[in-house]
Amino acid sequence: MTGQVFTSERKVRFADCDAAGIVFYPRYFEMLNGVVEDWFAGPLGVSFRELHIVRHVSVPTAAVEARFIAPSRLEDDLTFSLTVTKLGGASCGLRHVIECAGQRRFEATQTIVYVGRSLKPEPWPELLRARIAPFVETPA
Amino acid sequence: MTGQVFTSERKVRFADCDAAGIVFYPRYFEMLNGVVEDWFAGPLGVSFRELHIVRHVSVPTAAVEARFIAPSRLEDDLTFSLTVTKLGGASCGLRHVIECAGQRRFEATQTIVYVGRSLKPEPWPELLRARIAPFVETPA
Amino acid sequence: MTGQVFTSERKVRFADCDAAGIVFYPRYFEMLNGVVEDWFAGPLGVSFRELHIVRHVSVPTAAVEARFIAPSRLEDDLTFSLTVTKLGGASCGLRHVIECAGQRRFEATQTIVYVGRSLKPEPWPELLRARIAPFVETPA
Amino acid sequence: MTGQVFTSERKVRFADCDAAGIVFYPRYFEMLNGVVEDWFAGPLGVSFRELHIVRHVSVPTAAVEARFIAPSRLEDDLTFSLTVTKLGGASCGLRHVIECAGQRRFEATQTIVYVGRSLKPEPWPELLRARIAPFVETPA
Repeated sequence: MTGQVFTSERKVRFADCDAAGIVFYPRYFEMLNGVVEDWFAGPLGVSFRELHIVRHVSVPTAAVEARFIAPSRLEDDLTFSLTVTKLGGASCGLRHVIECAGQRRFEATQTIVYVGRSLKPEPWPELLRARIAPFVETPA
Repeated sequence: MTGQVFTSERKVRFADCDAAGIVFYPRYFEMLNGVVEDWFAGPLGVSFRELHIVRHVSVPTAAVEARFIAPSRLEDDLTFSLTVTKLGGASCGLRHVIECAGQRRFEATQTIVYVGRSLKPEPWPELLRARIAPFVETPA
Repeated sequence: MTGQVFTSERKVRFADCDAAGIVFYPRYFEMLNGVVEDWFAGPLGVSFRELHIVRHVSVPTAAVEARFIAPSRLEDDLTFSLTVTKLGGASCGLRHVIECAGQRRFEATQTIVYVGRSLKPEPWPELLRARIAPFVETPA
Repeated sequence: MTGQVFTSERKVRFADCDAAGIVFYPRYFEMLNGVVEDWFAGPLGVSFRELHIVRHVSVPTAAVEARFIAPSRLEDDLTFSLTVTKLGGASCGLRHVIECAGQRRFEATQTIVYVGRSLKPEPWPELLRARIAPFVETPA
């Protein structure tokens, strides 16, 4: 696959781990939410504060699917890679790949939707659409 | 579908909601984890304390998939329904349906795996298998 | 001390515990927040939904202080007791005592403030004040 | 006050905020826990992984006290400053000051205790004690 990849790093913290000493899986979704947050604030140029507080729009998750391959433990350095599988009218399909030292830890796909002031799905604004486009996966 | 259904109730709390006033989706997975926890402690007769602390086994989530249909808000009374889609050798497929006042809020499927002291998947102990069996969905 | 006591029960869940198998102390504050939430929705007759969503007021925490006496573990049944140490003009001092099977686990005091639509502290509405009053601790 | 100060930065994330759009105060304690975690992994040279997983010791919080001065909002850049108020035999008093753009947001003091394999308080190992000492506040 070619196309731009948004990568970020995140160390597993004490607060992420459960009584079994591994990452409690709901925390992984908090991490994924943080990745999307950083993607918007970074390359997409529109932060969640701008979206939620200033524009009164949001990008809720309509669907998410994750496959956990190997557990992660305290202080593991995780690398998150985000690409776009499909850029629809009001929706956007994301693919997350999470690795630690080259080992795949988990994979997820997620569909977010642009929801306007009307509280209904609305077409992505052109500027956002243009900035998301480079992250769309393209056949090699 | 027939077969037994494990249902539980949970009010949406302040701590569950995000700046948009709706349930922050990672919190939904904490709720699902709580449903599975209550199912084990209740009808399956083996609590997570017994599993983790006494027997040193666990039931990690290998995969999860959720479709969010309508947002939930502070103090909504959610009803969680759990059934089993497939009882494998070491795995178990779960289906969650979450409603509020008859409205579908979200659906999820989840695969948990029985992991023994060896930290490897192991066959479900017979007693647990026998108690899970009644929850397997059967064609009407 | 006499005066009314608001009590509630809460089992320690898997999601509350850390890698050491005991309650992660920030989760205790989530529990305390839930106690205050239930106190408002219950005897005080004004739920957080009513406060935040309908009236656009809030009761933020200005100060909190906790002393952790003994650790709590998965599935411990905690009993929370809430009393009022001082009912001020716009503030209210709370005392929390948390026990398990008669053993003191932790104690906390908390000051909440009534913040109106102005986003500034305002006097407690008379109805709320009247309903908080019975919980004020009085010398024996 | 002189003495070394451990500072760290943390942006307020979407996951930290409540329905009122400000940081939900229990999340502040998760942040403080993260500060202590970074202090141990950094200047103290012994990470929580080393403590909990390798040495089977821990540094639980015996008491914490916080005063919230001004609310924090999505994407605020918080600066955390940590100093030591008192280095006891098995305990250590910490002071946290949290600011955003020079404005004080909240202050906290916290007492942590060194708990050994015996699950009882034990004297700080000499190496840790020597590394904590420079952070003790001294009169100007």
